[in-house]
Formats: sequence, structure tokens, C-alpha cells
Amino acid sequence: MPDPAGRPWPTGHPPLVDHHCHGLVREDLTRAAFESFLTESPDPAPPGTSFFDTQLGFAVRRLCPPVLDLAPHCDPDTYLARRAELGARESARRLLRAAGIAEFYVDTGLPGDLTTPQELAELSGAKAYEIVRLEHLAERTAAEAEDPDAFLAALDRRIAEAARTAVGFKSVAAYRHGLHLPPEPPGRRAVEDALHRWLPTGGARLTDPVLLRHLLWSAARTGRPLQLHTGFGDPDLRLHRADPLLLTEFVEAVRPTGCTLVLLHCYPYHRHAGCLAQVYPHVYADLGLTLGHTGARAAAVLAEFLELAPFGKLLFSTDAYGLPELYLVGARLFREAVAEVLGGWVERGLWQGSDADRVSDLIGAGNARRVYA
Amino acid sequence: MPDPAGRPWPTGHPPLVDHHCHGLVREDLTRAAFESFLTESPDPAPPGTSFFDTQLGFAVRRLCPPVLDLAPHCDPDTYLARRAELGARESARRLLRAAGIAEFYVDTGLPGDLTTPQELAELSGAKAYEIVRLEHLAERTAAEAEDPDAFLAALDRRIAEAARTAVGFKSVAAYRHGLHLPPEPPGRRAVEDALHRWLPTGGARLTDPVLLRHLLWSAARTGRPLQLHTGFGDPDLRLHRADPLLLTEFVEAVRPTGCTLVLLHCYPYHRHAGCLAQVYPHVYADLGLTLGHTGARAAAVLAEFLELAPFGKLLFSTDAYGLPELYLVGARLFREAVAEVLGGWVERGLWQGSDADRVSDLIGAGNARRVYA
Amino acid sequence: MPDPAGRPWPTGHPPLVDHHCHGLVREDLTRAAFESFLTESPDPAPPGTSFFDTQLGFAVRRLCPPVLDLAPHCDPDTYLARRAELGARESARRLLRAAGIAEFYVDTGLPGDLTTPQELAELSGAKAYEIVRLEHLAERTAAEAEDPDAFLAALDRRIAEAARTAVGFKSVAAYRHGLHLPPEPPGRRAVEDALHRWLPTGGARLTDPVLLRHLLWSAARTGRPLQLHTGFGDPDLRLHRADPLLLTEFVEAVRPTGCTLVLLHCYPYHRHAGCLAQVYPHVYADLGLTLGHTGARAAAVLAEFLELAPFGKLLFSTDAYGLPELYLVGARLFREAVAEVLGGWVERGLWQGSDADRVSDLIGAGNARRVYA
Repeated sequence: MPDPAGRPWPTGHPPLVDHHCHGLVREDLTRAAFESFLTESPDPAPPGTSFFDTQLGFAVRRLCPPVLDLAPHCDPDTYLARRAELGARESARRLLRAAGIAEFYVDTGLPGDLTTPQELAELSGAKAYEIVRLEHLAERTAAEAEDPDAFLAALDRRIAEAARTAVGFKSVAAYRHGLHLPPEPPGRRAVEDALHRWLPTGGARLTDPVLLRHLLWSAARTGRPLQLHTGFGDPDLRLHRADPLLLTEFVEAVRPTGCTLVLLHCYPYHRHAGCLAQVYPHVYADLGLTLGHTGARAAAVLAEFLELAPFGKLLFSTDAYGLPELYLVGARLFREAVAEVLGGWVERGLWQGSDADRVSDLIGAGNARRVYA
Repeated sequence: MPDPAGRPWPTGHPPLVDHHCHGLVREDLTRAAFESFLTESPDPAPPGTSFFDTQLGFAVRRLCPPVLDLAPHCDPDTYLARRAELGARESARRLLRAAGIAEFYVDTGLPGDLTTPQELAELSGAKAYEIVRLEHLAERTAAEAEDPDAFLAALDRRIAEAARTAVGFKSVAAYRHGLHLPPEPPGRRAVEDALHRWLPTGGARLTDPVLLRHLLWSAARTGRPLQLHTGFGDPDLRLHRADPLLLTEFVEAVRPTGCTLVLLHCYPYHRHAGCLAQVYPHVYADLGLTLGHTGARAAAVLAEFLELAPFGKLLFSTDAYGLPELYLVGARLFREAVAEVLGGWVERGLWQGSDADRVSDLIGAGNARRVYA
Repeated sequence: MPDPAGRPWPTGHPPLVDHHCHGLVREDLTRAAFESFLTESPDPAPPGTSFFDTQLGFAVRRLCPPVLDLAPHCDPDTYLARRAELGARESARRLLRAAGIAEFYVDTGLPGDLTTPQELAELSGAKAYEIVRLEHLAERTAAEAEDPDAFLAALDRRIAEAARTAVGFKSVAAYRHGLHLPPEPPGRRAVEDALHRWLPTGGARLTDPVLLRHLLWSAARTGRPLQLHTGFGDPDLRLHRADPLLLTEFVEAVRPTGCTLVLLHCYPYHRHAGCLAQVYPHVYADLGLTLGHTGARAAAVLAEFLELAPFGKLLFSTDAYGLPELYLVGARLFREAVAEVLGGWVERGLWQGSDADRVSDLIGAGNARRVYA
């Protein structure tokens, strides 16, 4: 498809590195199940409304039908019928391969029967690597540990192993407590006390702020990049407790470990994230969920990210989850947004074409390759 | 007047439902009195400045003079002279009828000698319904109640009656305390204690957070839509205490009542409101004051609302108060903003024309009709 | 250079009043030293990145080379070589004179060997006036004072003198504590207690909130304009503690003094600042650092400022510091942003050309002349 903005720039589409995504559901989906992946809401759309009537829903209807041999903007039922006709696997194969993504970094800590990084690699013909979700790792470890000492030893082993085998870590402390955590690492005694309370649950949902901080610090000390959920998410999260600025003291405290922090999503606090990325050398910001969910507004939101954040500090991702459609939509919206925003600046003489090429490559792939190397 | 953006879309202008507005002043106004309705400031503009030199002032000067047979952008004194010549009533009649609004939902709880919904209906040739302002209802009830029991019984009766006769309720708790209220309903004892303190004032301005919460819950339990002021307002309000995210716990607590919450205004926290409207099925967001006060920027702000909020969750209003000019300006700015934003997406192939028609109708009237039905 | 947006409006470029800037470094700079002025970060850019790869860096590369006889967008090393060839003084002379600024109000409280207002006037051929930084004044006074009484008397004398000789005051309380300060003036006893703790340090960095408040009130009582840092800055500052809304209670408390408050920078809270500027007659907002650092996005950010802030309440500045490039970039970005935003509104019939001329003059010079008169 031609770039809707009709810009002369860019001429090529180098492959992308999707530094933050999830697995796919394998089975065919009903309309209700499909719609549930178009929103962060756990509830059905209220009567008289549909989650297809969102920017993400409209973007799916524009960009995906042609990959399944239909006209853009076809109605949801037509699209889902064709998708069922092709089957979930063939649809996924087509959509993933049309996305132009060369590498996937997959957060494997979501519940549900989702594809593994290996399956994603096979379906897409691209490479896939793992991102280890800390809270999930701790919960799995707790299910097996008998006491705090055993738990902490097992956790250390698993984090050390993940630092060798995965490209990075991720924390969803924003969902579990909020980002208003004391910045310093908790003491051994406090961790043990918290474990005495939590371990008897057998690995129930981890929400203890002491243990969340222990996980953050354990990951940071490995020196691998640490992704942190910030901003918009489902109702488990209090949005004003997910402002990335609440991490400022932690950002400063953790700096001596040499760990890189990647602030995920950020919206509607993406300008805050851009400010942090400018003043702290180890802070980066991600565009994923924000561009996908804002659809026709992706260019506008990308432009806001490109105010204060240095161009070596922004990373493309799709944050795709469940639907192969979301990889395609995330990648296409990103390319279109870059073409519109950077192309517009080139056209008006504000940026040089070769600079726009370079910045586009940095955000689309180069920054991720350097940060997660 | 032609659409200034010159878009081919939309072709028609279906009538609007203004789900949140106020009454008009009846008398002719001096320039100073007229200017006082162009701002949320209770003070005169400082020396050397004028409230006509605002986006709202410029929008009034662009859109209203032609309705009174003058050229757009004429200077304020010329406009006000012509307005006085025609008289306040004839000017109001012309401006209201030019607005293209089919239904007005009128908050009747503002002080001052303002037109009733019935008068507004007569002047405009449209229908008008009442929105009952809770704090005003409580203050009127207190002026007559002898003790807490009598007050609570009278309040219950009046709220039940309003639920039958009005289309919804409104709370200005943001002005009276801020939105950082405990979410759960207050206990009977706490309410009685608060009434023992407040009733002796004879209905003075209600600011007690226990009583404000009692009002919110009493209205919610009727199941009628509840409008909540959030965001920008006059200096009675602390803006950072009016962030709609501060309502998140209340949003969750009140959900079992079946009540619909409509977040009014929202600016500059309109993206926050959009996030809430996406994740909670019973949360809606309003565009009123925001589009009117931002004038030439209305399209930009509308576009930000249209990022995360599902299209079935946004509602047009004028938030007009005092001046008939504000109904016309609110309605025209809304239509222009929709034409520019949605029309631009259609032009670039990002949206389909028929989808844009449908979304435009939803926001302009359909969502309000469904929500307040 | 022609306006990149190619707008027919405006036709002229009246001289600007830069109501907030700093001195220049005198010596030739290495690339690393030059880059350090392109960011608020005190750290070098991390490996693989450069502070030239920012909106500010790109703006410098676009706008400054032609003034030194090079092509726009030339690479940083070429630019810095030519700059060294001409010498720091000649480069500064050229860049400053190309900026089109008629008056500089210079905050003289920054550390380092920077040019004085008089030197800036000579280099630029313009007028220069002083803005006195309160914390710096207090620290210099403390270095000489023997006890609280002597300090307070000396401080009073110096503030009274500054009120006669300088055009205004500035506070960086946002950096020293945050803007969440109690609004009322501290009592004499509390000030003395704080001085007993602080004076023995001999004028160390002042961070005591009691003393910061004493400075704010001492300046306010002179009736001269008081500039307040808000929003984005270096890591000494916690950005969420620099939201101008945190000043609301102080804004109200200080109003009876007759003092004008000018909220500096404001980004990313510039819409918050615009709301304050609308509802409080003595509150103004500044565009400086925000336009400079956002480069190709300056027009977008200016447009957001122009939503709620009355047009008589916004002031141009460069916030330039260290590099003469930053005066040129600040002034050019401002003119371009005004041409794009206001010119766009004129072109679409939303604003009248003569109104745009008037608003442009107000923001570029008239408001500052009136406020600091």
C-alpha cells in the first residue's frame, strides 16, 4: 500500500526490530473474543458500541483486509469470516510476514495459551528473542520454593540464567502497585518478612512493593536492559500511579548498576518520558502501544515523542498481543507516522533527508540493536 | 458560512444534541459584562489586555457578527452596538436558531437570573430538558430543613423526583473540594455528623466532602447519568485536584449501581478522560468547554480526544453560559473541528467516509440520545 | 532565510524583546563542550548517540551555518571548525546580530565565567537589562553575613536595590526544593531558625524551603515582576514537582502585593500554565526553553500555549545560555512558529490578518514591555 500521506520520503523500508511484543492466540476467534484484543478494557463494549469503533479498530480494518485479499475498510464481520476461512494459522502467517519486522523481542510472561518466541519466528520467518517478565518469574519460582532462603536462591539462579539467555527483563510493577515505590533496594530482612507473608500463597499475584523492588534491583544488577511498564493499561492499573516521572528517584538510584531502563508505552505521559530520556543517559522510551492504539493519530503522538527525547533514545515496538493483526498494524502505523512526521519536516526544509533516514533507522531498529546488544 | 478548511466531507449538518449547557442572561450587557462571559476568570482583564483577545473572543468575533448582519471579525464595540440595537432577545433568538441544536440539556443550578429550559426552548425553537445540579439541590433543601432526618428525607424525595423529570444529574464536587474524595459512600452516621455542622448555616455553599459524596452516591443509585465537572474552571477550583484520574476509585466503586458517568470538559486532562472512557464501560467524556475556549485550536483538541476514547463514548456540548453567542460558537466550532479532523482522515484514506459520517453522528447526537434515553 | 512554511503572513519582522536569557561563554569550545549546551543533561550523551541528534541540535545545524557562511544542515564538525576559524567573539557577534532581538533581560545568577549584560549589549548592538536571581543573591549575601540579623538587613538592602536597577527577579525554587511550597510568607522566627542552620555553611547551595519562601515574598513585595522556573530542567529538578499548578495557592496568596508572576518554560505543563494565565490577572507565561528545545515542533507547542492563555499573557524569550547560537535559534524558531501558527489561521479565515499582527507583536515584544515597564 502506498503511504497515505503521499510523501516522497522515505524511499525504502528497512526491516524493523520490535523490541516489545507478546505471543499470539492459536485458535480461531469469535467476534467478541477478537474485539477483546482491540482494547485494554476487560469488559465487553457497552450496548450500542463496539471496540471496532476505536482508532485501533479502524486501523485494523484499513490495513489488514488487503493482506487477506479483501478491500480496505471492509466491515468487521466480512473480515472475520475471511479470516476464519483462511484459518488462524494462515492468517497469522500472512499478517506477520507483511509486517516487515526482522526481530521480535517477546515478553513471555503473559498468561494464556500463547505462541512461544520459537513459534513466532517460524510463523513470521523472522528472529525471535525472549524478554523475561520479572513478576511472572517470581510467581513461578514461589510455586516451588519452600522458604525465603530457597526462594531467593532459586530466583537468583533464574535471573542469572535469564540474563544469559534473554535479551532483557520487564517489570509490570505499575500494574501491581504503581510506580510510587521507594527507590532504594529493600534490605534482606524486609524481603524475608515480605516473603514470609507471600510464599504461603503459593505464588499468588505478586503485589508486595518490597518484593517488586527486590525484583527490579535484582534485574538491574545483571546489567541487562530493564523494560518498565508506564502509562496507559488495563484497569488493574491506576493511570496517575503509572506516570514515568514517579520513577525519577529510582532512575537515579539504579544508575550505578549500569542497567538501561526502557520506559514502555508512556501515553499519555509520553512527553514526561521524553524529558527523562533527555536528562538521564540510561533512560530510553518506547513507542509501542501508543502508536497502535492511536491509529490515525499515530503521527501526532510520534511527533510529541520527538520533542524532548534525543533521537538515539526512542525505540519502535508493536506491543502486539494475541492478534497477528496487531503486529502488522503496529509496524505500518509506525512507518506511516515516520513518513508523515519526518517526511513533512524534510519537505519544509526543517530537516535534511539524510538526517531523516538516519533517525528513522535509529528508531526503527538501530537503537534497539545497540541497547539490547 | 463555508467550512474554513474547505473539506469535501461532510456534506450535511444533522442537528446536534447539546448535552450540557446553562441558561442565558436576559438583559443587554455592557462590554465589561459581556467580556466576563468570555473567560473563567472572575476578575477583569488586567490593564492593557482584553478577554476578547483570547481564542474564544476571536471565535465570537468570527462566527457571530454575520448572524447579526455584520462582517466576520468586526471589532467588539461594533458588534456590541449592533447587538444592543437588535436587543438581547432578538440577538439571542437569531444566534440560538443559527446554532443548529435540536436538544438542550440545561444545568439549572447556576446562580443569577438566567433563562429556564422552557425559555431556551422557546427562543431556539428546539427542545430543552433539565440537568439537576446536586450541590444546588442540597443547598435549596438545606434552606428549608430543620434537622438531618428531615433534610435527608427531603433530599431523597427531590432526587427521586429529579430522576423522573430531569435527564440527568451534575456534580461540581471538583469546585467544592476537589476530586480526591474517598470513593465509597459515606456511612449514615458520618452524614448526620456533617449535617449537624452544615445545616445551621442555612444552606451555605456546600463544601463538606462527606456530604458531596452522599450526593454523588444518592444520584448514582437512581441509575440516571451523572455529569462530573473535571478539568479547567474558575479559581474556586484547584486544577490539579480536578484531574479526572482522581475519580478512578469512585468510577470502580459506583459501577454496580448501573449509573453512567459523564466526565465534563476534562481539559487539559482530556487524554486522561479518554483512557478512562476506554477501560470503563460506564464512563463517557464531554467536549464542551474545551472546544469553545480553544477556538482555532478546537480541531487539535478534538483530535486528542479521539485517540483513546472509543467513538461511542464522546459527547458534544457547548457548555454555553450567559451569552447566546456561546451556543453558536460551541456548535460551529464542533462542526468545523469534526469536518477538519474526520474529513482530513477521509481525504488521506485513513478513514472511510461512511465511518466518518457514523462517528460524527454518534458524537454530535447519537451517543447523548443513547446515554440519556 | 525565507519562512519554511512559505506563508504570505507576516510581511515584517519587528524586533523582539527577549525577557529571559543568560550570558555567553567567552572561549572557543570543543565539540563536547559545545554539545553540553544543547541539552539539560549534565552527562555526556551515551555511547552511540550525540546531543546534536536532538530537535535543538538539528535546529542549530539548520539555522546557524548560513550566518557563518556555510550551508544549512552542514555536519557538526564542519560547523565547529568554521566557528573556531572565525573565533568565538566574531561568531557570537554575527549570530547575535542576526537574531533580531532589540532587548535582552539577562538572568545574571548562573555560575561560570559568562558575559555580563553590558557585554551582551555591545556584542549584539541591542539593549540589555538585568534580572536578579534570588537564590544567587541570597548565597552571595550569606557569604558575607555574620548572623541572621545582618543577613536579613543586607538581603533587604540588596533586594531594594535590585528593584531599582534590575527589570525583575527570578526564582529557581523548583530546582532547590520543588514548587510544593507552603504559600504564605514564613514568620520571622522560622526564617531566623533556618538561617541559624544555613549561614554557618557560608552560602552553600540554598535549598531550605523556609528561606526560599522568604526570598519569593521579599521579591514580590517590591512589586517588580517575578520569574519562576517551572517545568523541564536538569536532573536537579523533579519534573512532577515543577508543575506550575503547584504554585496555585502561592499565586493567590501573593496577589495583594501587586507583583506580576511570569511562569518560565512550563513544558510539558504549558497547558497548565495557560489555564493559570487565564484565570489569574497577575500570571503570565513564557515560551522560551520550550520553543528552542522542540525545534521542528516549536509551532505545535506554541499552538498549545495559544489555547487557554489570553494573548496578552504570553511572552517570547530564548532562554539562551552559553552559546550565541541559542539566541538565534530561539528567535528564529519563535518567528517561524508564529508565522506557521498564526499565518495558518489567517489563511484559513479563522483569524484576521490585523489581529494576527497585533497578537504577534504582543507576544514578541509588547507584553514584555508592558509587564516589565
